[in-house]
Order: sequence, then C-alpha cells, then structure tokens
Amino acid sequence: MRLKDLAEHLGLSQTTVSRALNGYPEVNEATRRRVSDAADLLGYRPNASALRLATGRAGAVGLVLRGADELGPHMSEFLSGVGSHMASREIDMLVTTVATHAEELSAYRRLAASQKVDAVILHSPTTRDERAELLLDLNIPFVLHGRTEIGHPVAWLDIDNKGALQRATGHLLDLGHQHIALLNGLKGQTFAEHREQGYLAAHAASGTPVERALMANGVFTDEAAFRTAQAMLERRPRPTAFLAGSMMTALGIFRAIRQAGLELGRDISMIAHDDVFPYLNADNMYPTMSTTRSSIRQAGTRIAELITQVLAGKPVADVHELWPVELVLRESSAPVR
Amino acid sequence: MRLKDLAEHLGLSQTTVSRALNGYPEVNEATRRRVSDAADLLGYRPNASALRLATGRAGAVGLVLRGADELGPHMSEFLSGVGSHMASREIDMLVTTVATHAEELSAYRRLAASQKVDAVILHSPTTRDERAELLLDLNIPFVLHGRTEIGHPVAWLDIDNKGALQRATGHLLDLGHQHIALLNGLKGQTFAEHREQGYLAAHAASGTPVERALMANGVFTDEAAFRTAQAMLERRPRPTAFLAGSMMTALGIFRAIRQAGLELGRDISMIAHDDVFPYLNADNMYPTMSTTRSSIRQAGTRIAELITQVLAGKPVADVHELWPVELVLRESSAPVR
Repeated sequence: MRLKDLAEHLGLSQTTVSRALNGYPEVNEATRRRVSDAADLLGYRPNASALRLATGRAGAVGLVLRGADELGPHMSEFLSGVGSHMASREIDMLVTTVATHAEELSAYRRLAASQKVDAVILHSPTTRDERAELLLDLNIPFVLHGRTEIGHPVAWLDIDNKGALQRATGHLLDLGHQHIALLNGLKGQTFAEHREQGYLAAHAASGTPVERALMANGVFTDEAAFRTAQAMLERRPRPTAFLAGSMMTALGIFRAIRQAGLELGRDISMIAHDDVFPYLNADNMYPTMSTTRSSIRQAGTRIAELITQVLAGKPVADVHELWPVELVLRESSAPVR
Repeated sequence: MRLKDLAEHLGLSQTTVSRALNGYPEVNEATRRRVSDAADLLGYRPNASALRLATGRAGAVGLVLRGADELGPHMSEFLSGVGSHMASREIDMLVTTVATHAEELSAYRRLAASQKVDAVILHSPTTRDERAELLLDLNIPFVLHGRTEIGHPVAWLDIDNKGALQRATGHLLDLGHQHIALLNGLKGQTFAEHREQGYLAAHAASGTPVERALMANGVFTDEAAFRTAQAMLERRPRPTAFLAGSMMTALGIFRAIRQAGLELGRDISMIAHDDVFPYLNADNMYPTMSTTRSSIRQAGTRIAELITQVLAGKPVADVHELWPVELVLRESSAPVR
C-alpha cells in the first residue's frame, strides 16, 4: 500500500493524506481521524527512512536528564507515553544523562551541534527556566512539559496544578479540617509554585489562616515524605489532613500516620496527586486513596503529538494546552473528627 | 588538562591512561582506579567529540522496548544505572519503542542500517532469544542483561536467580512452611525459568512435594499479584507463605492477605525479590519485608561498563558476570503457625 493508493481509496489528495498522517494543524480532526483509521485498516505505513532522507531529519527527539535519579517513576511513565506515540512512526528518543546544571546546558549545545535530534522535550521547568532560553538561542524546536516565564512564547502542555490544589484544599476545608499539611515539590519548580498558589487561594477563600510550618517542599520519595509527616504529626495542634504531592509521597505519609498509632480515613485525611502509575493504583489501596488525578503518560503521548505539529510548522504560540485535573474522592478523605 | 598532562602526573604512558579510562581489560583494577581517581581529582575529561570523530563512533547505545509498558519501574531503574555511567562520557541512550515482536526485529535492522548506535543492550531474554541471534547476524555489538542459549557465545550479566529462589524457598521450608506459593514472571523468560528451578530444587532437597496450583506466572504488577494471591488464599489447605517476584508483586499480595483478614509476618510469611527501587524500601514497610536483594541500577551501570569493554575489543566469551543475590530476613518471614 502506497500513499497514492491510500489517497485514492479515501478520495483525498496525497498532500492532504500526508499532512493528516503527520499531524499538520491545517487538517481538521475529523479528516485526520478518517485518514488514520483507513491507514490502520489497510495497513499503510509511511516510509520513515525515505521521509527522513527527503527531509534531512534525524528521526529522534531528545531528552536530557539531570542526575540518573531523574529517570524515576514519573519520568518513566512520561516516556512510556512519548514512546507509545513514536512507536509506529520510527522515531526514537535520545536520552542523555548529565550530572550537573552546567553539564545539562552543554548537553543541549552538543545536541544542537550533532544534529542527532529534530526536537527536544523540556521537562520539570523552573519559573524562569534558563534551559528554555538556551534552546531558543540554539534554535532547537522544543515542547515544554510544564510552564515557564521567559518573555518569549514557547510551546507547552501543563496540567492545572493550581486549580487541582485549590479544589482539594477547598474540599478538606469544607470537611472541617483547619490544619492541612502540604507536602509539595521543590521550591522554584513551576508546578510546585502553582500548587502552593492553589493551596493558599483555598485558605484565603475560606478565611482560614495558613500555618507555614505545615507547608513543606522536598523530593517525592516515600522516605522524605515519611520523615516530614512524622515531624508534622508531633506538632500540636496536629495536622488533621495531608495533601501529598505524589503517590510515593502518599506511601510515606501513610506509614507515618500508622506509626503514630493513627488511622487514615478516620483520624487523619489525605488527598494525593495521582499521576496514574499502573503499579500503584489508588483504588487498590487500603483504605482507598482520594486523589487529584491526571495521567502523566497521556501527557507524554500528547507532547509527542505536539512536537510533530511544531516540526510541521505550527507556531509555538498556538501550542498551549492546560489540562484540567480530576478530583476523585475515596475513603482516605473524611470529615474532621 | 590534556591526556598528556594526566599521564605525566601519573608517571604512566598515554596509552595506558587512555585504556584505563576506557575500561580496557588489559589494565588491572588497581591501575584503573588510580587513573580514574586522578582524572576526577584533576578535572580531566576526555574529549568525547574528538574521540568520536577519530573512531567514527555514534556515541550512543541503543535499547528497543516492546510496548510502552516495558518502560516501567524495573526498566527505568536499570536505565538510571546505565545513564549514571554514560553521563560523564557524553554517550547517549537511544530508546526505540515498538508495538510487536516483528517491529522489534525491524527496529534492530533499522538501528544497524542507520549506524545511530555503537552497541545495543538486550534485555528480558527468553531461554532461546531470536533477537540475540539477529544481533549476531547484524554484527551489532551487544551485552545481554540476563542469559539465553543460542549456541554462540554472547556477552552477558545476570543475577543468580536460581540460587536466590533456592535459598529463599529453603528458608521458608526450614521455618516449617509446607504450602509455599510462587508468583513468578512470564513463562519462557529466562529469569523466571531460573527462579522456578531454584524453587523446585529447594523442595526436592527437603523432600517436600510441590503443589503446581501454587506456582503462578504473570506480569509484576500490584493488580495481577492481588488477583492471583486472592485466589490462592481461598484454596484449602491455604498457602502459608508467598515468594513474590518483585516489590510491586509484594504490594498486591500484601493487599490480598489483609483483605482475607490475615496478618503478614504472623499468619502468612512472604519473601519478595527486591530490585532496590529508591521509592519502595523493604525496610520502611510495615511489617518490614524479607527480601532477596540485588540492585538493578547497579546492574545497569555495570552493563554500561561492559559495553565499553566489548567496544574496546574484549572477547564476548570473556564477558560473563553472574551476580550473587543477598537474602535479607526481616519481619515478614516467620515460623509457620
């Protein structure tokens, strides 16, 4: 099956079919889906190698990870999503690991010079991200997972972290909780700043004073969360509810609650942010875990699609997606005792 | 700092220093460490780009993943280890995701044709792995994480899965357990076959009959393990101990035990295989989890080193490493009640 045959079958021009398959924004969603379905049905696969020869493209998207630890559960789920889009397109992911911030910047320069990648996925942005500025200077197309403010338009996809925390905090306040602990990500990371804004906004809206001692920033590991939650549970008045930044954070808090002789969902409430790890299901926990939920894998898949669009010429100022976050209430959140 | 300066500082020839830094087997371990320490101390960094120009190398190692799901917790820990070796050497990982077995084989052919990688890491081998045969045909250097029997020598690193399960099973038998469930990996995967051999050997050594209904094969997710363990706990006589293939498997079994109104470490024992995920610590569980332990991240780092050696000319028949596995006893394994 050649492109020509597929186009004839559909009664469309080869150009339209090619654009539809490559995710060009000029083709509307209905046509794109019709073409994509027909291609699947008839077993049409674009010849990526030929395309690459013709376009001079590298056929790879780059990711630079700082510290091998960055390839943890969040990143691997995200990359699974990116990979599921790339799989049928013969596009690879070029993953570079570096030890320091300086090495990270060098790695981007090296990627630009080597022409090993057509585009880059930039992740875990800070509120004013130097790497985004460098990529603009180097003229490498990129899509940002998250947001940053650098005074130039960039392509991005983010989840509504502020809205998510505002709703979760508001719900706990409605349940009568007055001492709500926030185990947030690292200071300076945009997502953590947005979550803090949501937490503060909900307190302001209900007229409840904020206790700074209950706001912590750290990495999302079981161990770090355990220590932080343990210390907070020794305070008086004790926090009656926790907002956990990730499911790993939730595991650590859960352990601290149990070790303090308290019961989750009765003595203490918790709402955790759930990136939807297939191996840590909030529904399967005991008690089941209330969550703010957004699939980081789906975000990866969509960012891979957006990269295709940016490479096809879509202006980056038009590539801005803010995803809403679900609030899923289960057994771990209950009225204050 | 140039190579020449480093060699003069050490009183060694440039050739020896270069070989030491590139992991050539001709340089003994003491010298290799001395050179590596001096390079770190003096801030010497080999010029990877120049090396690449001179050697014609791609500066990347390839990994093909079948199904985006394969980029789960085990693979990301393993890649963290690979990445930590590559980070200071300006070597990248080229990750290709594919949907089917046929696509996987095509991906290796494509990698060979594109010359995008210098070597490949082959993982999750079956007992007779077609991909290893293909890589030999394609003449791509590779190191196998695990073992396979294809009638040709290949470079590999594996952990002693048979020995690990033999010891863990033997320990449970010594504690008086007669009905020990094994939640193993997928049939046909070498590591799962080896683990089964260890389980059977321990039973044979103690003269305890094996119950086939307590031997299960499946994926290592919380959910799959929960269902399998739940069904097994409904049998009479009930299993009094579980061998869990991974920490994710252990979480699912733990949930099934609790849901059956039983207590881990008292009514039921468990020993889990621990790949040492930083976010799921066996010591931090409640009760603490007895494990067979081997760091999959360290395996990744070592495989990256072995690749350097293979590329430097070390015969693959000499690159065989079988790592012992620790048995770490904690609260989850106890005498049968």
